[in-house]
Amino acid sequence: MASLKRLLVGTPIRTARLAHERLTKKTSLAIFASDALSSTAYATEQILLVLAAAYVAGQTDAFSRVIPISIAIAILLVIVAISYRQTIYAYPSGGGAFIVAKENLGTLPGLVAGASLLVDYVLTVSVSVAAGVEAITSAMVGTRFADLHNHRVWLCLFFIAFITVANLRGVREAGSLFAAPSYAFIFSFLCLIGYGLVRYYLNPGLVPAPNDVDLKIAEGYHAQPLNLLLLLGAFANGCAALTGIEAISNGVQAFKQPESKNAATTLSWMAALLITMFLGASVLTRLFNIHPLEHETVISQIARIVFVGRLGWFYYIVQATTASILILAANTSFAGFPRLSSLLARDRFLPRQLSNLGDRLVFSNGIVVLAVFSGVLVWAFRGDTSRLIPLYAVGVFLSFTLSQAGMVVHWWREGNMLRGMREAAGLSTPFAPATQSQSENNLAGKFEARRLTEASRSMAEVEQFQKKSHWKKYLVINGIGAISTFVVLMVFILTKFMHGAWIVVVLIPLLVLMFLRIHRHYFEVAQQLSTEGLEGLRPIRHQVIVPISGIHRGVIAALEYAKSIAPHHVTAIYVNLDEESTQKLREKWQQWGSGVNLVVVASPYRSLLRPLLNYVDRVKRSSPGDVITIVLPEFVPAKWWQNLLHNQNTLFLKGALLFKRGVVVTNVPYHLEH
Amino acid sequence: MASLKRLLVGTPIRTARLAHERLTKKTSLAIFASDALSSTAYATEQILLVLAAAYVAGQTDAFSRVIPISIAIAILLVIVAISYRQTIYAYPSGGGAFIVAKENLGTLPGLVAGASLLVDYVLTVSVSVAAGVEAITSAMVGTRFADLHNHRVWLCLFFIAFITVANLRGVREAGSLFAAPSYAFIFSFLCLIGYGLVRYYLNPGLVPAPNDVDLKIAEGYHAQPLNLLLLLGAFANGCAALTGIEAISNGVQAFKQPESKNAATTLSWMAALLITMFLGASVLTRLFNIHPLEHETVISQIARIVFVGRLGWFYYIVQATTASILILAANTSFAGFPRLSSLLARDRFLPRQLSNLGDRLVFSNGIVVLAVFSGVLVWAFRGDTSRLIPLYAVGVFLSFTLSQAGMVVHWWREGNMLRGMREAAGLSTPFAPATQSQSENNLAGKFEARRLTEASRSMAEVEQFQKKSHWKKYLVINGIGAISTFVVLMVFILTKFMHGAWIVVVLIPLLVLMFLRIHRHYFEVAQQLSTEGLEGLRPIRHQVIVPISGIHRGVIAALEYAKSIAPHHVTAIYVNLDEESTQKLREKWQQWGSGVNLVVVASPYRSLLRPLLNYVDRVKRSSPGDVITIVLPEFVPAKWWQNLLHNQNTLFLKGALLFKRGVVVTNVPYHLEH
Repeated sequence: MASLKRLLVGTPIRTARLAHERLTKKTSLAIFASDALSSTAYATEQILLVLAAAYVAGQTDAFSRVIPISIAIAILLVIVAISYRQTIYAYPSGGGAFIVAKENLGTLPGLVAGASLLVDYVLTVSVSVAAGVEAITSAMVGTRFADLHNHRVWLCLFFIAFITVANLRGVREAGSLFAAPSYAFIFSFLCLIGYGLVRYYLNPGLVPAPNDVDLKIAEGYHAQPLNLLLLLGAFANGCAALTGIEAISNGVQAFKQPESKNAATTLSWMAALLITMFLGASVLTRLFNIHPLEHETVISQIARIVFVGRLGWFYYIVQATTASILILAANTSFAGFPRLSSLLARDRFLPRQLSNLGDRLVFSNGIVVLAVFSGVLVWAFRGDTSRLIPLYAVGVFLSFTLSQAGMVVHWWREGNMLRGMREAAGLSTPFAPATQSQSENNLAGKFEARRLTEASRSMAEVEQFQKKSHWKKYLVINGIGAISTFVVLMVFILTKFMHGAWIVVVLIPLLVLMFLRIHRHYFEVAQQLSTEGLEGLRPIRHQVIVPISGIHRGVIAALEYAKSIAPHHVTAIYVNLDEESTQKLREKWQQWGSGVNLVVVASPYRSLLRPLLNYVDRVKRSSPGDVITIVLPEFVPAKWWQNLLHNQNTLFLKGALLFKRGVVVTNVPYHLEH
Repeated sequence: MASLKRLLVGTPIRTARLAHERLTKKTSLAIFASDALSSTAYATEQILLVLAAAYVAGQTDAFSRVIPISIAIAILLVIVAISYRQTIYAYPSGGGAFIVAKENLGTLPGLVAGASLLVDYVLTVSVSVAAGVEAITSAMVGTRFADLHNHRVWLCLFFIAFITVANLRGVREAGSLFAAPSYAFIFSFLCLIGYGLVRYYLNPGLVPAPNDVDLKIAEGYHAQPLNLLLLLGAFANGCAALTGIEAISNGVQAFKQPESKNAATTLSWMAALLITMFLGASVLTRLFNIHPLEHETVISQIARIVFVGRLGWFYYIVQATTASILILAANTSFAGFPRLSSLLARDRFLPRQLSNLGDRLVFSNGIVVLAVFSGVLVWAFRGDTSRLIPLYAVGVFLSFTLSQAGMVVHWWREGNMLRGMREAAGLSTPFAPATQSQSENNLAGKFEARRLTEASRSMAEVEQFQKKSHWKKYLVINGIGAISTFVVLMVFILTKFMHGAWIVVVLIPLLVLMFLRIHRHYFEVAQQLSTEGLEGLRPIRHQVIVPISGIHRGVIAALEYAKSIAPHHVTAIYVNLDEESTQKLREKWQQWGSGVNLVVVASPYRSLLRPLLNYVDRVKRSSPGDVITIVLPEFVPAKWWQNLLHNQNTLFLKGALLFKRGVVVTNVPYHLEH
């Protein structure tokens, strides 16, 4: 086992290397952006799938609505990206929706954001891997591997396992593993769009007739007119394009210094690429009159049309890089989920094991938990992207909204503090310290105040301070972000509730309840374990009980041990299962008892445990306040299978005694040779 | 769980009731004879299945050979039954092949007999249940439940589970459960034979033409002439009729007093019934020209022909009682297997848990083991009787042979002793005591010698002694039994080796090896645990180590406990995972350490266990001969799920320390409230 783990995961890494595990901008674009960029591979298709409901109802121009919807989504994307740039600067130590909401809105909104993000991460893995596998099976249409479509679920599970192992090896190695495919995808997708446009304008007659036999409609939709609700549904589906955009703000700490600046630059690049690729794909579907199909993705259809003849091989490049980026997009979550759950665990809202750094300096437990949940989800939804999408965006947009709302409060407080400082200084100098009472409940404020009272007021600080004076502008920007993402969230719940979104709507409150329950438990444990009220170590009065099954070296070792603890308070206890053996024991006891009191208890039902436990209870009642030690003679066989040849009474007894208060269990092992 | 067990198995029974759990002759005929008698339901068919190989080769009169073969088997049956009557009297304390072979031939032949019997018991369950299910599916031929045939395996497993539960409830209750079906079968089968004969002689024109489309041939046979090998094969197959005849001699102790007499009478009745029913069935197959079929048993075919018209309902009585007896025949093994394995376990050839009397005064572990193995066998052979039969009789006849050979030696020694006694008394009186040396190695002889030297020499003893003087006659009878069963064993191996008998031929030596291996282990354990060479209890020098994770009430309780064991030899050990926490601990230690030495160890790879174990090793090396006690502070959550919220380091540590010699582990639990 141990060596299998070493082979897969690698040898342990020293804690001292922790600081070195940071990412360059290029590598982090590959890691953090793969989720957001990869969604271009399915976002357009998700819009078309809903519009198809109007198309089959006779509205032949229904698919043309993909353009205005895509533009609306692109605008939303710009708003969200600008909002998140502000977050990155305001929270250079890293902190996505969870930290921002917790610090500014309070613990409960923070936990809601945390729960949404955890759900979102799990869904990112499931959706991305499912879409990646669809890219592969699409490429098989028309070949003799066409039935690969039926083995989707197993393929998905295989890829999840693959990414899990890669991440257990550690974040930097995972980064270098994923950099090449990310850039290859960006390159091939931009080629597809560029060459597609050129090709269309050189030869518009290329467009083939769409194949309506295999037409696919979004899960839960039926033929219906092109009304507002349907358009909103299509818009909501397309918002899958925005997922993953927050990943960078969660992981600012993973960047090389200066973290904030590098992270913000990376975010801008990512947003620009995302808009180009998403709008490009949407435009191409119109140009080439693409309809969503059951057995082939929209991107695959476009690529087949664009790359024909001598460029046919490039179709496979597009599919291969799309599949790679999608499957590796899941990797974003494998960075984010363990990081967030370690934050929640450190605040005692999740089991503390999730905050343990593993052998390879990654939060191994979180990685494994994510792998298990996303695997279950893929299996439950048969690896079908369009069935997973309705669950997807609720968590994403809920956390967007909370994060932006938190930022609004953040700027408002910042502004208040600034005003307070100016007033305190009689408006003469902006550098007067804030009064303690004003900023007491504001961590950022306190920090600022301390900084400002320090002697050295460098030019950098002046700049920093002047920047902060733009708080009104920042507040408005994040306010717009908060309102627009909230509206989208409502649209989403409205249009997708029955299609699966209800699962997430129910799940998030349950998760929050779980967080609170766990938190209360840790709090109560800490209270109960607190040393308050104690004064040094107290002496102990002992009662020692040695259950014996006869006289042998193991028993004698236990008796010796028991006598060494409390020479005059040892009792040996023997369960009488047949009279003959009991008589023999009594005789032997003359020689070996060494004055230890022997108690023989009856057992009419041939049980060993019951009479022993009853006896312990009796001693407890007769000597309240004493510590009762059960000294268990135990012989340890040399080979594991030999345990099968011995009664496991000691084990059962240990288990039963664990729940008795005031009882200490001591194993005196006697090791056998062969 | 516990209450489910109570519901299925019933409440525990006191040990004191053990003596009352004895069987009357009527009940024991039902229990012990069901195996032997039920084999009449398939023995004839197994002969026909082999003869079918000659029939399809054009030898149209092949099936007529069933009569001479059946007569040969009946003669063998008489020989074996008489032999076993002698065993019952010679071993009134009960003892089948295992005890007889062990006492007279030595341990190894005894173990071979034991292994054969265990295999035989497992096969009895599998074959009987499979044949019982075939009786049920045969009755469904021509009805709309005809496809029940395809669900045989599940039906078999269901019935095995049913019998298992019945037996776990206890032997007497099981007996009363099975008495009615056994007698109903005997009655209906005798009716079938009687009415069948009457019917045939009143109206011989009744015989229908056989259905050769569905003709079945024994597994592994192909069309071939009717040569000696084929006849021997048919004979060997038919010997399945003899299985189960030894059951009574294994369980003499289960009878009411006088045990031997009651057991012998029951055996005679059983043999008489068996011969009548088996020969009767064979004769009827000839009279009605029955051929073995794929989808219907031979007995079912006969009953369909005999009971037509107004008596049609009696056909279903025959099938129902046949199915019942077959399924319940498995019950013989559920009495025998646990009894034999408890004997083997008591002699330390099997895990001693098999000799534990369970809650309900039955050897529950043996019952469960039997159920598991027979279930696996039924599943592996798809519940097909004819595929299981070739495995069946090897074990049976091997144990017959060893048992009879053991009896031959028994009588030979008895004769020797008698001669010795006569010689010692100068032939004047037959009551002179045997010399010690002559009878030393003979338990029965010793017993006899002691009895004879006693003062009261009653008439009963004289009679007994005179009986024993017939030892030559007894020796010849058992000799004939041994030789004939040995010949059959050879025939069986010769004709069935390739058809599956090889499995048993390989398995029995492996089992014997396992017995010997287990025996050696127990012997070595006893030697190592022997108190020889010890002189009373020795004093102990302590080194106490308390691994701590900080300062809290649980740790303080552990420190108090540690100091009470060895006030001046306690060391607290702390693993440094981060400098800040370590510094805090050092400060707190001033207050709480109470003079206990604090050791902080480094852990570059963030492991807790490794540094602790290394430290323990260091202490062991520096203080050889001292007992090292690890006192583990452990807090016990109030609810089980709360364990998920705490590191299970204590558990891992305990596991790792179990294998360190000279290390005692003490848990000081601290119980949490909610």
